[in-house]
Amino acid sequence: MTPSLSRTGTKFRTACERVRNDGERIALVPTMGALHEGHLALIRFARERADRVFVSIFVNPTQFGPTEDFEQYPRDIEGDLRLCQEAEVDRVFAPSVREMYSDDDLTRVRVAGLTEHLCGAGRPGHFEGVATVVAKLFGLAGPCTAVFGRKDYQQLKVIERMGRDLMLPVEVVGCPTVRESDGLALSSRNRYLSDEDRERVVVIPEALSAAVRAFERGERRAGVLSTPVAEAMAVAGLTPEYVTIADADQLHPLSDDTQIEERALLAVAARVGATRLIDNVVLGEDPAPIEDDEG
Amino acid sequence: MTPSLSRTGTKFRTACERVRNDGERIALVPTMGALHEGHLALIRFARERADRVFVSIFVNPTQFGPTEDFEQYPRDIEGDLRLCQEAEVDRVFAPSVREMYSDDDLTRVRVAGLTEHLCGAGRPGHFEGVATVVAKLFGLAGPCTAVFGRKDYQQLKVIERMGRDLMLPVEVVGCPTVRESDGLALSSRNRYLSDEDRERVVVIPEALSAAVRAFERGERRAGVLSTPVAEAMAVAGLTPEYVTIADADQLHPLSDDTQIEERALLAVAARVGATRLIDNVVLGEDPAPIEDDEG
Repeated sequence: MTPSLSRTGTKFRTACERVRNDGERIALVPTMGALHEGHLALIRFARERADRVFVSIFVNPTQFGPTEDFEQYPRDIEGDLRLCQEAEVDRVFAPSVREMYSDDDLTRVRVAGLTEHLCGAGRPGHFEGVATVVAKLFGLAGPCTAVFGRKDYQQLKVIERMGRDLMLPVEVVGCPTVRESDGLALSSRNRYLSDEDRERVVVIPEALSAAVRAFERGERRAGVLSTPVAEAMAVAGLTPEYVTIADADQLHPLSDDTQIEERALLAVAARVGATRLIDNVVLGEDPAPIEDDEG
Repeated sequence: MTPSLSRTGTKFRTACERVRNDGERIALVPTMGALHEGHLALIRFARERADRVFVSIFVNPTQFGPTEDFEQYPRDIEGDLRLCQEAEVDRVFAPSVREMYSDDDLTRVRVAGLTEHLCGAGRPGHFEGVATVVAKLFGLAGPCTAVFGRKDYQQLKVIERMGRDLMLPVEVVGCPTVRESDGLALSSRNRYLSDEDRERVVVIPEALSAAVRAFERGERRAGVLSTPVAEAMAVAGLTPEYVTIADADQLHPLSDDTQIEERALLAVAARVGATRLIDNVVLGEDPAPIEDDEG
């Protein structure tokens, strides 16, 4: 069945209220569209946690920097609706920019601390844009579960904190990263890659997997775990933006000589050509992106 | 009957949900306590708009500057609860600071533009603190009407905009300023005034009333309306912080030679001794604070 479609905030809010009044729980999956198998995993993850799955599709201008790819970001609402139908999504919320940001919109939500490092360092204003638009979506949706991918780990942590700090009635949950068969994390931006670059970027999951295996063998020195990741990416022709080991909750970077205790985030961002890709594993928690044949 | 008391956000949220599930509407009156006749007017105003009136009492640390009177701000929870009982308030929410700001709270809400002038200029961070704590209260309360005094006109506008921009299910309404018989706007800070200063500060409503009458007689030049207000306050021994005519919605100041069209905000802040008082009228909309005996 075709999912119902809300184009305005008012109609989306009313639809959410109606569902709750019927005693049903909502799981919201906020997306920027250009849906792929990773989003379908979020939708299945959401389905297990609620009676109704609502997907929002909105390319949020305030989270793109002035030199970033807002205009070029892939948009395919027809394809997205078809995928949502196949995935049995109950409702799609696809508002216009004007609908989410009125002409005299003035309010921004900022999560300090968590947004200073990692992607926040290279993308000033990005997480303020994310926190603001997600606060709006939560304001409209009301009590629900909201599902985000762990591929965007820092985003997930920022949104968890924002929802909790603003006391919004939303349970934020993270869904494990979905990967191609060669380990590459699914991303709407993968479609930018040339065939040659697509082959190159497999170094990211390979290097993360090597770090996971080193951690499993007992290596605990942050620098010894992270340095080979940066080197491998550079050798493969990528331009690393950061390769950082950080506290998995507070996201503050750990110096190279830190001995990791139980768990730590290993997060990377790199450019290949004009495309920027990110990936991460939580050492001590996540499996290696690529299974070890010998394992 | 003694009003019910919630001390934690979780319990307050649950109480609000229960009332709504019974089909009753809630009006929320956020306060910093030290309740006076002005708050009782807000409570009566709220009563006309809902089935249940809930009052929050919370002296919000993030809206006080480092040199301001957070520690000294009057606190009288026993007296407040007695007044709430007399006013037939249904529930009081009186959380601790820790309850509203967890140890690792990181999120702030900022309303740009509206907060640059008037009180925002002299109190950096003040309205960010206000917008943040009110967003939290709205997040906890859920769908309701929220009542604020027009005495804090800029605050009212900031909160209206914040609620609308973040798409929170809250209707924000402003209640007319309540005044003493001599015209002084009620404020918890009036209790700081010495007898001598109390006599002096009547110049504020007198000067605002003179401006309203000049406007009613057809004077439209912003500078001609505002200058006598500043002069009268200075002559009376007050230290004006600002006397500003501003757009009543966007709050940007109008230059002295502006011809006011339909309406404009005339807002003042002044110090007398260590006490800072504010007041305002919307020219073309509000009556004079002091009735004209000849009128």
